[in-house]
Amino acid sequence: MTSPNFHTVDIALAERSYPIQVGTGLLGTADVYVALPKASHAVVVSNTTVAPLYAEALLAALKPRYANVQLVTLPDGEVFKTWQTLNQIFDALLSEGCDRKTILFALGGGVVGDMTGFAAASYMRGVPFVQVPTTLLSQVDSSVGGKTGINHPLGKNMIGAFYQPQLVVCDLDTLKTLPTRELSAGLAEVIKYGPIADMAFLDWIEAHLDALLARDPVALAHAVRRSCEIKAWVVGQDEREAGLRAILNFGHTFGHAIEAGLGYGEWLHGEAVGCGMVMAAHLSHKLGLVDAAFVERLTQLVKKAGLPIVGPQLDAKDNAGRYLELMRLDKKSEAGDIRFVVIDGPARASVRGAPDALVREVIDACCAG
Amino acid sequence: MTSPNFHTVDIALAERSYPIQVGTGLLGTADVYVALPKASHAVVVSNTTVAPLYAEALLAALKPRYANVQLVTLPDGEVFKTWQTLNQIFDALLSEGCDRKTILFALGGGVVGDMTGFAAASYMRGVPFVQVPTTLLSQVDSSVGGKTGINHPLGKNMIGAFYQPQLVVCDLDTLKTLPTRELSAGLAEVIKYGPIADMAFLDWIEAHLDALLARDPVALAHAVRRSCEIKAWVVGQDEREAGLRAILNFGHTFGHAIEAGLGYGEWLHGEAVGCGMVMAAHLSHKLGLVDAAFVERLTQLVKKAGLPIVGPQLDAKDNAGRYLELMRLDKKSEAGDIRFVVIDGPARASVRGAPDALVREVIDACCAG
Repeated sequence: MTSPNFHTVDIALAERSYPIQVGTGLLGTADVYVALPKASHAVVVSNTTVAPLYAEALLAALKPRYANVQLVTLPDGEVFKTWQTLNQIFDALLSEGCDRKTILFALGGGVVGDMTGFAAASYMRGVPFVQVPTTLLSQVDSSVGGKTGINHPLGKNMIGAFYQPQLVVCDLDTLKTLPTRELSAGLAEVIKYGPIADMAFLDWIEAHLDALLARDPVALAHAVRRSCEIKAWVVGQDEREAGLRAILNFGHTFGHAIEAGLGYGEWLHGEAVGCGMVMAAHLSHKLGLVDAAFVERLTQLVKKAGLPIVGPQLDAKDNAGRYLELMRLDKKSEAGDIRFVVIDGPARASVRGAPDALVREVIDACCAG
Repeated sequence: MTSPNFHTVDIALAERSYPIQVGTGLLGTADVYVALPKASHAVVVSNTTVAPLYAEALLAALKPRYANVQLVTLPDGEVFKTWQTLNQIFDALLSEGCDRKTILFALGGGVVGDMTGFAAASYMRGVPFVQVPTTLLSQVDSSVGGKTGINHPLGKNMIGAFYQPQLVVCDLDTLKTLPTRELSAGLAEVIKYGPIADMAFLDWIEAHLDALLARDPVALAHAVRRSCEIKAWVVGQDEREAGLRAILNFGHTFGHAIEAGLGYGEWLHGEAVGCGMVMAAHLSHKLGLVDAAFVERLTQLVKKAGLPIVGPQLDAKDNAGRYLELMRLDKKSEAGDIRFVVIDGPARASVRGAPDALVREVIDACCAG
């Protein structure tokens, strides 16, 4: 390893384990990839924003190891997380004669990672892949844990697979070029890990928020590492979301309704989750599980991170009704019963239903008039 | 169990096991489904040919168990084994509010089974499903073992998943309505199990071919059961085709080239496999692995089963070159090297490469002039 500055978090899953490397100067370092399976083809999947910045370095690092190294560049954005875009990857793989040992590299944010992962899960019924996340959100959340997929016009991430990468490479240098709005969006998922799993981490985030927003590399390294550790711990216990893993969706039930209601891409995923956490905290309070001080503390932190704390209007006539309708379509719903992740103690989350009337009160209190 | 006439074959896989029920009067019997997981929605996926014959009986058997039972009818045929058709299943599931406990039932042949299985593997990252195969080919082969997927314009079954059903229900009554051509196609996969695994079964097939062609229920029951046993034994040892499972592709390398070269659906899959086995037997002979008597014996059996034994011309100028080109695109190819399943002893198959010149000789000898 030539990079002087890295740290490895291991994900231990029933079927197999893989390392998450967190550090600087990683993605262009050939040594990072030495433990990967041999193949004749390596295909890097990226998008029009990220490829010009980092594809060349990654391709160069892979060339000593793989005889055929190619780049597939997708359009950038959540609106392109569709079958049509996914099929661009399949077209490229098939027209280049890629076999079932071909290894894919997802170079980009959550959309690239989710689509490349699903392409890897499905191409010839499964080829290996590597996550090289270049956004804070994908480094702390979507690249870890094996959730892959695409959107359907009727719902987000409705089509996909649980499929684990061989390796995750979190190169902190890529965060230098991240737009501020996306940095904030990533912080939403970092903040999430506090209330659900580690209040000391929440204290740390509050104390270091200015450093994080200023992209201090030491602070970012700790935030990414600790987030990955917590996610690895949860996913290691419940890969397929039979139970515990669902707590990682804190803020996501309301958040998904916001994203779906506004149209995907209008708010960033992290922005919707930030606002969704505020709404879920309100719901937890209304259910008598946390005090008002906790709601206020979380709301202030989300706000300081540069995230919205007031939900958008999704319907002029019956806004709360529209939220409820959208949440019933959420994957976590069972037979039309919406499942909410609530906080029910320090660093403790659980999944439960709630009366519609109570949820309406929360929506009315948390949304713009 | 109200059916007096059934037999269960168990598939034992590392992650989990499931039963294959083989018998008469099964699909419309509610008791057959008692061990399946509970859910609020059950969705039967079928096609325009099979649904009118059997959907009503299956839906009636499921209604006592599931509150919402629906039917999705797809167009019939290999040419519809596409993303567009698959998406019809997703559209139906999402527009009906199907949650992640929804159970899918594949009622039809291999195309319906493969697509429904892939839909189940991918919908909300995985819901349970049941195979109710209604063709001989799907009963003895495609419904067992968890291979699911769709075709891509550049290759057959190129996009899919390994995903195991909860249960396989082989109702022999459905074979009564099967067109003769499809019965023969199914016999190709039955015959396959002899040379690769059980020469006594090959003897039995030769002795009972007339009875099988006459749809004698006792003969069919034995053929389906023994085929499922052999496939279960192979898949149980190698679910993801890391090694042994590849022997199940005997005849398929040449067969896939025929299907792709003619356009999917021109020849039935089983017809292409039947002819492909003859070609693979010739190759085995040219490699010095079997004697000419074996090639002749297999050729005669394939012919008597009503299957083609002469390969089609795929290119007027360079027929063998076209076969080779198509076979290089096969999923089993590695870095452009075609992998052939050859017979190298009684009931013994292995996977190996072969010199292009030798393969050309086989193709020239086996194809129409």
